[in-house]
Amino acid sequence: MIGLDRLSLNQATVKHLSVPEVAALCGRHEIPAIGLWRDRVAETGLAGAAAAVRAAGLHVSSLCRGGFFTQAGPEGLAAARADNRAALEEAAELGTGTLVLVSGGLPPGQRDLGLARRMIADAIGSLVPEAQRLGVRLGIEALHPVFCADRCVISSLGEAVDLALLFPADAVGVVVDTYHVWWDARLADEIARAGRRIVSFQVCDWVLPLPRDTLLGRGHLGDGCIDFGPVTAAVTATGYDGDVEVEIFNEEVWDAPPDQTAATVRERFAAELGGPLGPTSG
Amino acid sequence: MIGLDRLSLNQATVKHLSVPEVAALCGRHEIPAIGLWRDRVAETGLAGAAAAVRAAGLHVSSLCRGGFFTQAGPEGLAAARADNRAALEEAAELGTGTLVLVSGGLPPGQRDLGLARRMIADAIGSLVPEAQRLGVRLGIEALHPVFCADRCVISSLGEAVDLALLFPADAVGVVVDTYHVWWDARLADEIARAGRRIVSFQVCDWVLPLPRDTLLGRGHLGDGCIDFGPVTAAVTATGYDGDVEVEIFNEEVWDAPPDQTAATVRERFAAELGGPLGPTSG
Repeated sequence: MIGLDRLSLNQATVKHLSVPEVAALCGRHEIPAIGLWRDRVAETGLAGAAAAVRAAGLHVSSLCRGGFFTQAGPEGLAAARADNRAALEEAAELGTGTLVLVSGGLPPGQRDLGLARRMIADAIGSLVPEAQRLGVRLGIEALHPVFCADRCVISSLGEAVDLALLFPADAVGVVVDTYHVWWDARLADEIARAGRRIVSFQVCDWVLPLPRDTLLGRGHLGDGCIDFGPVTAAVTATGYDGDVEVEIFNEEVWDAPPDQTAATVRERFAAELGGPLGPTSG
Repeated sequence: MIGLDRLSLNQATVKHLSVPEVAALCGRHEIPAIGLWRDRVAETGLAGAAAAVRAAGLHVSSLCRGGFFTQAGPEGLAAARADNRAALEEAAELGTGTLVLVSGGLPPGQRDLGLARRMIADAIGSLVPEAQRLGVRLGIEALHPVFCADRCVISSLGEAVDLALLFPADAVGVVVDTYHVWWDARLADEIARAGRRIVSFQVCDWVLPLPRDTLLGRGHLGDGCIDFGPVTAAVTATGYDGDVEVEIFNEEVWDAPPDQTAATVRERFAAELGGPLGPTSG
């Protein structure tokens, strides 16, 4: 249902490579897009990273990440705002229309989820003019509820959609990441409700047993529990025709030769999302 | 808002004690109710366990647990059904009106959440007559989404409520366990919708960092991230006037002297749920 012409490799999948190295890897494997991370972009330098991507004939599907809005005190909040404005400018410079947000967990010393959610809404609202000016949309990512306390209190796609709908569609959307939302009985309905607000579709699998660091319990498509057919169909039905990023945090994947990882990413993408190289999806 | 006269100690909190030992502990600490587990009841023997509870002047708030309905093949399904019928009979014999269900994860080799959910609905439906005959309600427990793949595909309270509403109220209800549902932006609404379907209210805290075994990342009330005021208020507003179980899976708690654990359970319950011993809840 989604061909390999829409595959993007998020650079977190090949963690040990620099931006130019990932760009070259994508070029070798006919992967037309790349998802970038700000820390790695900074290592190469913004202009250099943008040039490396262009030289490899790629486009940037998204920049990770802004967010972490639930800081303590005026100084913390001002710093978060400044950082997110910088992230928007970097996204524009890299030529991507999507900045992925990991919105932040409970504020330090607080247990009030409502407060955290209001802080996030306020922060996103304050970024809207800058996002519109730069033509970059803020992608609210629902993180798996296991990360609610410490990383992101936006714990379901429905909640991300509710939040996004408070703001103009040209400034704020949602990210659908299978790893974070696959468990949700309301997922298909919420994807439909998200509609044109979907600004990024990220895929990886949920693998068991969970590793020591829960962040790293992700796998190649097909190695875990997620049924990619229905979620892909639901996203496609909204009219989403953008890039589909494979983003895998996993020690074994990181330790594998990058060319092997890229080949596996392509094979599994075709097999699970129904591209031309794989068997027909069920 | 909820006094210590409604405190129940789930025996999983003092894992190393037998049923008679937990019953005696509750007696010493003026804890009026106990939540039992079938494996520990079996060690003591059903009649002996019931007698020990009566001798200590306690009542049984719930029996854990039935469920695990998503078995492979006719034999697996028949075994699950027989086991759940036995669990209902044990609950009746112990004098509790609630059998807690952990419904089961993905069936072996399957990735189809819809199939798993239909299997669970079918299995619960088949148990309804027996539950009604015995006067024991099946309590559908939503488990945290981190357990969706391997333990319970019912991952949010709303989903548990949707499922319970398919069946008669005298046979099927829902369990609200703060540890599993605290992250949910829709929690207050779903508790209200559950209304009189709430058959058990269990409390423990979500503590960070998560331990190696995610099942054990629970803590004494007040040691973690959960704001017990709003959830307690929401449950109380439904008219729920039953027992409130403290159930903590945590290696350090298990290794502590049981009398210390019981004292801490009482203190924290009063402090967080507004009982007479503690400060007034906010």
